[in-house]
Amino acid sequence: MTEALLARLGAVVGAPQLLADAAAMAPYLEDWRGRFTGRARAVVLPADTAQVAAVVQACAAERVPVVPQGGRTGLVLGSVPDASGSAIVLSLRRLNRIRQVDAANGSMTVEAGCILADAHAAAQQAGMLFPLSLVSEGSCTIGGNLSSNAGGTAVLRYGNMRELCLGLEVVTAQGQVWDGLRGLRKDNTGYALRELFIGAEGTLGVITAAVLKLHPQPKAARSALVALRTPQQALDLLALLQERCGATLTGYELMSAFCLDLVASQFPALPRPFAAPPPYTALIELSSEESDAHAAALLEGALGAALDAGVARDAVVAGSLGQSRGLWQLREHIPLAQAAAGKNIKHDISLPVSAIPDFIARTGAALAAAHPGCQVVCFGHLGDGNLHYNVAPPPGVAHAAFLAQEPGVNRIVYDGVAAFGGSISAEHGIGALKRGELVRYKSAVELDMMRAIKAALDPLGIMNPGKIL
Amino acid sequence: MTEALLARLGAVVGAPQLLADAAAMAPYLEDWRGRFTGRARAVVLPADTAQVAAVVQACAAERVPVVPQGGRTGLVLGSVPDASGSAIVLSLRRLNRIRQVDAANGSMTVEAGCILADAHAAAQQAGMLFPLSLVSEGSCTIGGNLSSNAGGTAVLRYGNMRELCLGLEVVTAQGQVWDGLRGLRKDNTGYALRELFIGAEGTLGVITAAVLKLHPQPKAARSALVALRTPQQALDLLALLQERCGATLTGYELMSAFCLDLVASQFPALPRPFAAPPPYTALIELSSEESDAHAAALLEGALGAALDAGVARDAVVAGSLGQSRGLWQLREHIPLAQAAAGKNIKHDISLPVSAIPDFIARTGAALAAAHPGCQVVCFGHLGDGNLHYNVAPPPGVAHAAFLAQEPGVNRIVYDGVAAFGGSISAEHGIGALKRGELVRYKSAVELDMMRAIKAALDPLGIMNPGKIL
Repeated sequence: MTEALLARLGAVVGAPQLLADAAAMAPYLEDWRGRFTGRARAVVLPADTAQVAAVVQACAAERVPVVPQGGRTGLVLGSVPDASGSAIVLSLRRLNRIRQVDAANGSMTVEAGCILADAHAAAQQAGMLFPLSLVSEGSCTIGGNLSSNAGGTAVLRYGNMRELCLGLEVVTAQGQVWDGLRGLRKDNTGYALRELFIGAEGTLGVITAAVLKLHPQPKAARSALVALRTPQQALDLLALLQERCGATLTGYELMSAFCLDLVASQFPALPRPFAAPPPYTALIELSSEESDAHAAALLEGALGAALDAGVARDAVVAGSLGQSRGLWQLREHIPLAQAAAGKNIKHDISLPVSAIPDFIARTGAALAAAHPGCQVVCFGHLGDGNLHYNVAPPPGVAHAAFLAQEPGVNRIVYDGVAAFGGSISAEHGIGALKRGELVRYKSAVELDMMRAIKAALDPLGIMNPGKIL
Repeated sequence: MTEALLARLGAVVGAPQLLADAAAMAPYLEDWRGRFTGRARAVVLPADTAQVAAVVQACAAERVPVVPQGGRTGLVLGSVPDASGSAIVLSLRRLNRIRQVDAANGSMTVEAGCILADAHAAAQQAGMLFPLSLVSEGSCTIGGNLSSNAGGTAVLRYGNMRELCLGLEVVTAQGQVWDGLRGLRKDNTGYALRELFIGAEGTLGVITAAVLKLHPQPKAARSALVALRTPQQALDLLALLQERCGATLTGYELMSAFCLDLVASQFPALPRPFAAPPPYTALIELSSEESDAHAAALLEGALGAALDAGVARDAVVAGSLGQSRGLWQLREHIPLAQAAAGKNIKHDISLPVSAIPDFIARTGAALAAAHPGCQVVCFGHLGDGNLHYNVAPPPGVAHAAFLAQEPGVNRIVYDGVAAFGGSISAEHGIGALKRGELVRYKSAVELDMMRAIKAALDPLGIMNPGKIL
């Protein structure tokens, strides 16, 4: 990279928005989980789409890599630059406006750097709901949510980020602006470019704004914990709830006993709804567009039927919003409890829902055989077939020592996933972290198509190189 | 094309499944609406995916165009070959098996040639619902539904075909088989290839099978007709229903008085719910996973609120399934009544829902000024912002003579669509029919990206040439 390019970037964004010294750049180079720190030639913070386009044009002219970055809460090293120091980090944080709310169309146009919680607030102000629900909502950005096709706890009812987006504005790898900000429910005029940029992790272009889909705000939500003996019971309960409650079922989370024990030991102040955690616990949420009484009656009826049918052993229903928050806190504290207990080997996998009991049984047995005493932290969005299936060391074994077993543990888990037709990344993406696994588990035909698309849209290979492919 | 290729194709599919004489090929060359008859070198009817791959490989070797074809019910000349006679028509009709139903996963694997009604039946047998609802369901195929990203009357609740598909099997333009038959709700392992092939109208590859998403069967559905004065009232009623009824609102169709008059004059035996059609009529449907009583009470409450608020003038609620079918028959007979009355100038457009009143007012005025006395047949899926906005001749003017005005009429309608940020093809696609309009209304940036993707996945340009691009 030439000094002339740095000067040109400074002229585009204004000198104070071009960071080139180590201290100023440091926060933009660090991975969220602290596993890696990259290097960069500079960090630029453009103010609007035109500046983003000018930055990409300038970088393309010198073939300088561009790493788009949002709230940097990603979990697969997708938004930090590599160690070469050759890249420009392009932070979208200053593109954070809500451009338009169109309640009558059920849509809202926001810029990529808008914090998810701010998007929630803007929707709420208009009497609507933007349903994407993530623990990192106070830090993550809409652009990052889109680029990673974020999921979370409301996918069962509302879909992933791809289903929550109607239109995009993108700066292409050539530095052109594609105005695809359409607020349409139906549009069959050519190839699915919107869907393609969503989930591409910044490797095909830079998402600068989006039209998001809004939903009516539910009038009420009711939550419950249900005690289960087996994963198969979790499936049976899910089927029963879907059959009786339809779209009012907005959340269905599974937690193993080990997860709740971990939370209880690390956060003793949290409620303990069961005297001793059952083998598996389901956290369910119904929300109703009608009334709290409707949600309550529906939940009571469904749980009664589940108990009668022997699908559930016991249930704890939240009687208030506060109690409901308490139940969700248990679920949300699982990642925190793991972090407090020491690093483990993490997997974000998905399976056909019907395959989950067999997957859990066989993979658990294979892990126990290869790593006697290891402990599986199994929880996740069961309704979507998405498990966060983490493996912790046997009692007494140091976490750092156990982490050395990661390649072997991954092989057992991912081979199991592949055998059941699952995915090695349900909602976190590939980034730089899982590139090797992607090549192992994707067919050559699929990888070739992905490479052809990358080469077609980013022929210079400057967009977030080393991510996904 | 060489004789050797014909012999090779015959060897792949078996001689009886290779049609090369004019009489045998004729049904495969005709447009559904009778507007065009193409020519082809041969029609092949492979039995399975391997044969499809072998056919495409053979054609690729000689750069012979391949036109994939399903039930041939498309409306944009997307599945018939052009007039050159150089192409092979590849009918998927013999790939019509239901490969697997996985009720616990809410999914079903079907082949591309499976008739939509047969997919409905298979889902129902498993106690589930495959919700895509089209008038042509007895003839159209799943492969065609996918390739055109079909919409229909249940999109409001369940989404377009793209949202109803979890995985695909595709024969690429190189004749390779991509096994993307994943039954997963979440899978963030690379680019959105599934979404890209859906809606590509066979121009990027041949869809041979798909994993479809199933939903719980509603326990009951209730329909009503609501009399409205203006399109704005239709929007107000839609907002009221969404706010009160949430996902139970599965259908929301709008019909102008002219539409219902047309149906009444062409099909006098059908019910006439209103003595004189109001300016606009909404056909609404609620479906409940709970009970018929729930659906009925919800509908009654919502309509009462709408009448109280002055949003609606009058309402007719279907008291039985038979009455409900009668209401839907009015809607479904609009296309038939138009055909019986004589050809008109058709448009399948979408708009931001919030823009529909202004669009209808301004476009109607522009049409009246340019073509005094012309009659607008305005109906469609208002909940999705999708109008079938057709223009019939002034009383006394011959339909054939008026059809000569099509270019000018299209310009007024599509310029109006573009001004409001709409789409010139909401659910029918582009095919060969709307290629010129696509080039007019898409940005150069978007067209360039589409062309780059086409060249990347089909470098020889043999897949359904002359369609979309």
